Amino acid sequence: MNIQTFPTNPKAIRDLIRNGEVDKSTAGMAPGYVQANLVIVHKDLAFEFLLFCNRNPKPCPVLEVTEVGSYEPVILAPGSDLRYDIPKYRVYRHGELEAEVTDIAEYWTSDMVAFLTGCSFGFETALIRAGIPLRHIETETTVPMFITNIPTNSAGSFSGPMVVSMRPIKKDQVVRSVQVTSRFPSVHGAPVQIGNPKEIGIEDINKPDLGEPIEVKSDEVPVFWACGVTPQAVAMNSKPDLMITHAPGYMFITDAIDEEYSVL
Amino acid sequence: MNIQTFPTNPKAIRDLIRNGEVDKSTAGMAPGYVQANLVIVHKDLAFEFLLFCNRNPKPCPVLEVTEVGSYEPVILAPGSDLRYDIPKYRVYRHGELEAEVTDIAEYWTSDMVAFLTGCSFGFETALIRAGIPLRHIETETTVPMFITNIPTNSAGSFSGPMVVSMRPIKKDQVVRSVQVTSRFPSVHGAPVQIGNPKEIGIEDINKPDLGEPIEVKSDEVPVFWACGVTPQAVAMNSKPDLMITHAPGYMFITDAIDEEYSVL
Repeated sequence: MNIQTFPTNPKAIRDLIRNGEVDKSTAGMAPGYVQANLVIVHKDLAFEFLLFCNRNPKPCPVLEVTEVGSYEPVILAPGSDLRYDIPKYRVYRHGELEAEVTDIAEYWTSDMVAFLTGCSFGFETALIRAGIPLRHIETETTVPMFITNIPTNSAGSFSGPMVVSMRPIKKDQVVRSVQVTSRFPSVHGAPVQIGNPKEIGIEDINKPDLGEPIEVKSDEVPVFWACGVTPQAVAMNSKPDLMITHAPGYMFITDAIDEEYSVL
Repeated sequence: MNIQTFPTNPKAIRDLIRNGEVDKSTAGMAPGYVQANLVIVHKDLAFEFLLFCNRNPKPCPVLEVTEVGSYEPVILAPGSDLRYDIPKYRVYRHGELEAEVTDIAEYWTSDMVAFLTGCSFGFETALIRAGIPLRHIETETTVPMFITNIPTNSAGSFSGPMVVSMRPIKKDQVVRSVQVTSRFPSVHGAPVQIGNPKEIGIEDINKPDLGEPIEVKSDEVPVFWACGVTPQAVAMNSKPDLMITHAPGYMFITDAIDEEYSVL
């Protein structure tokens, strides 16, 4: 499809996705609108997972939870369908990645609950507006993500390490990047680590566990934010019977405005 | 007990409460420490109630949820006991206030889940530090609370009106009061209404539904914040089999520092 005609309206983009016409990361799409991570579990795990999110608001800031059996997030995107409106999904069984699929119609059952949690794409728009360039967006690659040694706060059967995303920030813009992202606790908020990857268990900054590597230049510092992929690391660790998520970088695009989720 | 020897340490105060030596509102006690609202429900309602809180973060900002059957909030106050450590509790059955009691040992069962949610006492310390006086603290009365016409976002069986608390603020300090409380989304955050009680269904500012009336002077504006008593209005409306709460103004005093819950 011609890039110049690619829509910027969330619903129009979701329609393209539903029709199978989008097969890339949603980074940079629908600028100014909230994008969300997806986690789906059966009802019997819903309380534990919601509690897990509440105990880990930096990696898992809850934006919406659907009614049991409903695939429509009525607050963030009325009329949408979480079974089809994400370009790529992951299906985990007993902690193992079983499949990557472009829709989850065959997996959906009436006892499922869907969780949408905040995604760093939200604060990225604010960073760019504040004059802080983000190279993975300029180069159209997926942000590098690392499984850290920071434990999450467990809830019932859910436990595991926090996943972080890394952005190289110019040394004289680090303070500003903390200020800007602090305004958005619903999309991971302030960084969890600045400048010292080894302290959080990252041995090689050039070898992310997910996403693509990005060079940290000599006038830059690696800055780490809690990442919405954390539930997938938790799924691998906690082995629930079934957990369906988005594929990293392939998010759910909502109708909500980023700035509505700022605290100041 | 002699007011001059009253402790300021949270654990020491909880010990006095546990021994039945405190029979007044906890307002102003342990300044700088987080105080919390309490809601206890049976496990089968825990997911719905947690979801209700998530959908209504201004009146019901979740600070901690205990494990099923546990009366110890291990994050906010290790070693404490939610059955005894609040001066006064309310027991609601099928939406009716059945009893006000000073401990809930006889009601506690092993399938209960306790929710602690943020209380405006937290941002009150910040307001006072910012030079904004609060008359209900100066006069040692309970803040006036009103049941509004603002609907909460329902979740499962939980629905009902939002309760707000009112503080008269000097006209030239209203903007500052918005700024200061915006830093504390975990304790209700920014006001929900400024200066126009009728718009949110309050007919007579001198007749609060809960707490005690406070005069709004001619150089002041009534400012309304979402209130942690909201779950009690919801309980009356939604009629769960059993809900146990703190009595308005009689809060759970935690070991957590207010400023740790600010976003900036």
